[in-house]
Amino acid sequence: MSSSSEQDFARYLGIHRVIEPRGTLPQPAWKLDNTPSAYPTETLIYVQKLHIDSASFTQIARMCELDTERMGQHIMDIVTQRGKMHNPVTGSGGVLLGTVEQLDADFGREHHLTIGDTIVSLTSLSWLPLSLQRIHKIHLERAEVEVEGKAIFFRSNPLAKLPGDLPQALVVAALDVAGAPARVAALAQAGQKVTVLGAGGTAGLLTLCALRQKLGSNGVIIAIEYSERALQDIVDLHVADVIVQADATHPLDTIEQVRHACFNDGYQADLTINVVNVPDTEFATILLTKPDGRILFFSMATSFTTAALGAEGMARQVEMHIGNGYMPDCGAVALQLLRDYPTLRTIFTKRFGASI
Amino acid sequence: MSSSSEQDFARYLGIHRVIEPRGTLPQPAWKLDNTPSAYPTETLIYVQKLHIDSASFTQIARMCELDTERMGQHIMDIVTQRGKMHNPVTGSGGVLLGTVEQLDADFGREHHLTIGDTIVSLTSLSWLPLSLQRIHKIHLERAEVEVEGKAIFFRSNPLAKLPGDLPQALVVAALDVAGAPARVAALAQAGQKVTVLGAGGTAGLLTLCALRQKLGSNGVIIAIEYSERALQDIVDLHVADVIVQADATHPLDTIEQVRHACFNDGYQADLTINVVNVPDTEFATILLTKPDGRILFFSMATSFTTAALGAEGMARQVEMHIGNGYMPDCGAVALQLLRDYPTLRTIFTKRFGASI
Repeated sequence: MSSSSEQDFARYLGIHRVIEPRGTLPQPAWKLDNTPSAYPTETLIYVQKLHIDSASFTQIARMCELDTERMGQHIMDIVTQRGKMHNPVTGSGGVLLGTVEQLDADFGREHHLTIGDTIVSLTSLSWLPLSLQRIHKIHLERAEVEVEGKAIFFRSNPLAKLPGDLPQALVVAALDVAGAPARVAALAQAGQKVTVLGAGGTAGLLTLCALRQKLGSNGVIIAIEYSERALQDIVDLHVADVIVQADATHPLDTIEQVRHACFNDGYQADLTINVVNVPDTEFATILLTKPDGRILFFSMATSFTTAALGAEGMARQVEMHIGNGYMPDCGAVALQLLRDYPTLRTIFTKRFGASI
Repeated sequence: MSSSSEQDFARYLGIHRVIEPRGTLPQPAWKLDNTPSAYPTETLIYVQKLHIDSASFTQIARMCELDTERMGQHIMDIVTQRGKMHNPVTGSGGVLLGTVEQLDADFGREHHLTIGDTIVSLTSLSWLPLSLQRIHKIHLERAEVEVEGKAIFFRSNPLAKLPGDLPQALVVAALDVAGAPARVAALAQAGQKVTVLGAGGTAGLLTLCALRQKLGSNGVIIAIEYSERALQDIVDLHVADVIVQADATHPLDTIEQVRHACFNDGYQADLTINVVNVPDTEFATILLTKPDGRILFFSMATSFTTAALGAEGMARQVEMHIGNGYMPDCGAVALQLLRDYPTLRTIFTKRFGASI
């Protein structure tokens, strides 16, 4: 690679915006330059909404005891300190919604954009320089923050234009977690028993539908959820074969309940999808899966060492994946599920409203 | 599950030894009861050696500035505080070597053990209650600590008996990392281009040999290593097709060097194995792999969120695995490589000595 194309690649990834530590990539960097103006190769977005990653929002809400003023101040502090919305405790971000204000020509061609288009980021907020002028409102029930701000996209960052036929709030919520259903649709195989831990969350519900669509009637879906309200949504959705209420942070109790719900039919899954939003569910996940099965960890609260050493220590050769939130057209898969499953859309509308 | 078989399962996993937090599994628990006597269902091992996980040992050595007295004290402090050798910074453990002192009958039957047998743990030290009476010596060059201590094995924990034909120190070093070559032997496919990051470490060298054995002449192996001494070992081993010296914590430089070494033949791998022992190598790993390729992260220094959000933020759908250190017979795979590759054995002997 010539020196100039090496520089191009660095700009493409956004390294030029990293203040600290110098030379790292934007996602893991401590601090980014969030100057709200597009440098060459960049695209500037006028930001209207942040949809905070579930693990991050849960942590902030708990820390601020659900006081939205304190939460708003805490979010402003993170963004001021780091130049992006990147929760230092959970390491996760979320997605944003906004309109194109300054547009890099290459980026515009690749994504078919023009100035004024409304877009949703498909990359984590932990990657994007962000400055916030104001926080208008925090919606606790849907992890949404209405803001005025500016964000920078690099040429490497994926995004999606808002489709015309679905309400904005639903699109943002679905795109934040679009990787899980898309990846699951690719990996699940006919005839499998598939368990979803945290099945009542946003990612969980989409994943249940993606599984049902892939498996048809040829497979068993076990949905595990802790919240009673979310359990009712799973019941209404009518796609899961077995529904279990359990707290995945208590592995032995969870196994007991799943075993009970499966009668004598074997409680262990060929494929287990972990989409919870709290820590300490690795063991339940491993124990609920066949020793030669497969696990996709999508939860941003997953601990690499706990999963690795836990499986090893229990002599389980289960294959474990770090859930990659990117699949080509993953946005399209998630949005199509909202169209294909009217009940899913109803549940999302109830949860995320139909705000513009 | 009846209440008594639920209790059996809990004892099988070792929950009864967890002091804090109550009810968790031993591996993630903060503190275990390390009383040096076998309770019902347990097996007591008289411990002679600890082989500390590479990421953990590197961290301790750096922190104590290579002063072995300070390191010994630090290890004693961890074990006193936690009841096990579980590095709170890296979250990793290592393996132990010792002899059977008190033997649970079921465990003995399953592993064909008798009192006095010499064994090596195949589970991480982060799982096993350990008490240390004394530290005799620390061998910096091979992450080995000669000790007097007692450890408890639960019925769920795998271990391996020492084979008669290989020196102890080599066996311990190989078994600590046996999961990587075993898993790689299962996953690599003929015709693939496979890259190993951290190829000069213990796990790296075993992995290179496992790959060559699996691929035969039908595939390309790229070995990436930072240390000059270790690079020479890779050269001597004669199994890698391309050898690159690079610092994987600098992703763009690393790509440049690999690209250069591969001429015009494409630098991205179908399968990349990460067995480094330092943090911040996720991006290099992702960028060195084809977008539709596969990555096995074995390094205990891997950050789940950095890997997940990094791939997502760069629009890469690469499949990423949490390297599971357990495979059935994984000990056997690693030890057989030491027999099949005399040069590997020579290098291991040089590194780990031929101590009894």
